[in-house]
Amino acid sequence: MENHSDIRINSERLERSLKEMGEMGFTPETGGRNRLALSDGDKVGRDLLCKWIIDSGFELRIDEIGNIFAYRAGTDKDAAPVIMGSHIDTVRDGGLFDGAYGVLGSLEVMRTLNDNNITTTRPVALAAFTNEEGARFQLDLMGSSYFTKARTLDVVYAVKDDAGLSIEGELKRIGYCGNKTIPYGNYFELHIEQGPKLDVEGVSIGAVEGIQGLAWWRCEYSGEANHAGSTPMELRHDTLLAAAEAAMEVEKLALRIGNSCVGTVGRISVEPDVINIVAGKCCFTVDFRQYDKALFEQGKHEVEDIFARCAGKRGLKFEFKRLVDVPPVSFDADMVSLVERKAKEIGYSVKRMYSGAGHDAQFVCKVCPAAMIFVPSKDGRSHCPEEWTDFADAAKGCNVLLQSVLELI
Amino acid sequence: MENHSDIRINSERLERSLKEMGEMGFTPETGGRNRLALSDGDKVGRDLLCKWIIDSGFELRIDEIGNIFAYRAGTDKDAAPVIMGSHIDTVRDGGLFDGAYGVLGSLEVMRTLNDNNITTTRPVALAAFTNEEGARFQLDLMGSSYFTKARTLDVVYAVKDDAGLSIEGELKRIGYCGNKTIPYGNYFELHIEQGPKLDVEGVSIGAVEGIQGLAWWRCEYSGEANHAGSTPMELRHDTLLAAAEAAMEVEKLALRIGNSCVGTVGRISVEPDVINIVAGKCCFTVDFRQYDKALFEQGKHEVEDIFARCAGKRGLKFEFKRLVDVPPVSFDADMVSLVERKAKEIGYSVKRMYSGAGHDAQFVCKVCPAAMIFVPSKDGRSHCPEEWTDFADAAKGCNVLLQSVLELI
Repeated sequence: MENHSDIRINSERLERSLKEMGEMGFTPETGGRNRLALSDGDKVGRDLLCKWIIDSGFELRIDEIGNIFAYRAGTDKDAAPVIMGSHIDTVRDGGLFDGAYGVLGSLEVMRTLNDNNITTTRPVALAAFTNEEGARFQLDLMGSSYFTKARTLDVVYAVKDDAGLSIEGELKRIGYCGNKTIPYGNYFELHIEQGPKLDVEGVSIGAVEGIQGLAWWRCEYSGEANHAGSTPMELRHDTLLAAAEAAMEVEKLALRIGNSCVGTVGRISVEPDVINIVAGKCCFTVDFRQYDKALFEQGKHEVEDIFARCAGKRGLKFEFKRLVDVPPVSFDADMVSLVERKAKEIGYSVKRMYSGAGHDAQFVCKVCPAAMIFVPSKDGRSHCPEEWTDFADAAKGCNVLLQSVLELI
Repeated sequence: MENHSDIRINSERLERSLKEMGEMGFTPETGGRNRLALSDGDKVGRDLLCKWIIDSGFELRIDEIGNIFAYRAGTDKDAAPVIMGSHIDTVRDGGLFDGAYGVLGSLEVMRTLNDNNITTTRPVALAAFTNEEGARFQLDLMGSSYFTKARTLDVVYAVKDDAGLSIEGELKRIGYCGNKTIPYGNYFELHIEQGPKLDVEGVSIGAVEGIQGLAWWRCEYSGEANHAGSTPMELRHDTLLAAAEAAMEVEKLALRIGNSCVGTVGRISVEPDVINIVAGKCCFTVDFRQYDKALFEQGKHEVEDIFARCAGKRGLKFEFKRLVDVPPVSFDADMVSLVERKAKEIGYSVKRMYSGAGHDAQFVCKVCPAAMIFVPSKDGRSHCPEEWTDFADAAKGCNVLLQSVLELI
């Protein structure tokens, strides 16, 4: 293929696309977007995306779970496509960029290929995966897990929303239950960081090496609810203090492991929750993440040791449940290097990093070589109306995607 | 007066009285007593008490706030009475002893004087104060504060319950709005400890020197709600961790001050309270008690320093409100010594101690010499159906009350 290293995407068109998609499901009362999977908001977003795919001359395919694909054929009929993907569903009152940026950035790359009349050997495809967020139907990464055969149709169709509505029924209602997929080739996912690292360090591009392993627990301490005035400190079985100590120990553990490790107590509640009664019960959660497989396993054991140790010190009963346990994911080393190299060639600052959040790429990377490209999130905010990435940064990420794709097709 | 040091109360009658009063407001579903102030449960308890007062030949007096007095005249018409008192109202699903023990113990002492045909110089009186608990009408120690003129009738009548019902209306409805009081003389209050000290140490009698000073705060931390996966530990403003640290610092403070000091975080709540989001807001309360006036003042400042220090370390905004601030109360030294001496003379083990909980005595001690007598609470439990004091221990406390009263009349 001839040298296309000077080609850049149309940043004005990318910005227009993002803003136009941002009107779909927009809720003036909150300033957020509500494109919960398979809702009316999601439908109008899908309709707009499909119109753009067709208007750009790409082949539209929709599969059984409502994943939307745009297919741009190559000269080699047997070659597997280079896929770019993400999602357009949002959480409740989500922002302009999470998911939509990856999908519209991919569309922009394909449009740029058209603009420059570039013929490719391998096909190029876009994938917009259904229900990445899991905010309405609470099984996240649904579309990508079905696409990669990690979950069967039976499993994903069995999930219902809080109103008891089914995936299949809602897919049919909004007209997105199809039967056409695409083959696996390579996979790139462009996404906002959803964390503050790039923003704080002033770096434009994150070459994402993988996704941190994730474990969630709910822990419950049972002690004794006693009068706060007449129960001496040394005779107490204070569950709130034990949970407080556990929360601080989890913080210390994450800092000690280092290596971008994070540990969070996000929920806590006590009983009887009365100002002058020592808390007899305390429930709290722990979210623990680490990308190194050995450190992830070690950290999980240490978290459970903390539960026991903090209970033991105060003579409490305790029980915990590991709610989630997803091991770390490593992306394809060559593809990560490709992203890093392309960013440098264009002249953008770039750093290797791990994703703290889950993404469709974590399923797709199991079936084909994959990598992700991150761009800065202002103040690390996401999943809220304030979520923001400067359009200049969005264009940079998209140019890295374009140049990385061009290398493979 | 002749020597009555061998006289003892009728322990079977005391037990019968306690059990019979325990049927008033009894709730089979919970096993608790519901004599919330001025409720139907309280009314049947009052009716039973008044019947006993009249049947025993004492003069019944009821004042404007519904305090019930039993008056046994002495030979000196001008002498001020020796008053014994407590309350018969309960919290929701309260136990057999809290309050009722003091009132029925006092009645038992007066009945014992009758049994032994003892004529006294000074009058002897019983006081059952209205709404000590503040569980329904949320201004506790209501009857004793009105009796001692610490609060005016306007102030106490202005309090309404959650249904908007007034004190005056409820007093009239149950027939306990009177206009007769008694003069101040000396005051004894017999009560269960509501804490575990006597039970744990195997001591029969507590000679109560005073009531700990009490301060309550509500503190709110505001930080930043961020993604638990993608926000590095060092860039967080985690309000839950700051509150956790504050809770542990309050514990350390109480242990460092010693001197029976207690500090408790009984309530805590976070926002958004989501497993994978760093808590952006955290509210918690502190209950702090200490009987030494200087240490109480010092401790209050240190608690507020803790609020600021734990917020500062994590770059949080904070605000707090001191909800309650009641200085320590010291009882009359001679009366405390009298209680201690009488316990020893009878042959009961006794220790001087402070009350961690509030009692009617803390108002009455402002207008006349007062002291309290504690008996053991099994496992320190109170304000619950499981609240328990062995009847043998109840009888011992009542004998100490009898002998202490006999010394003054």
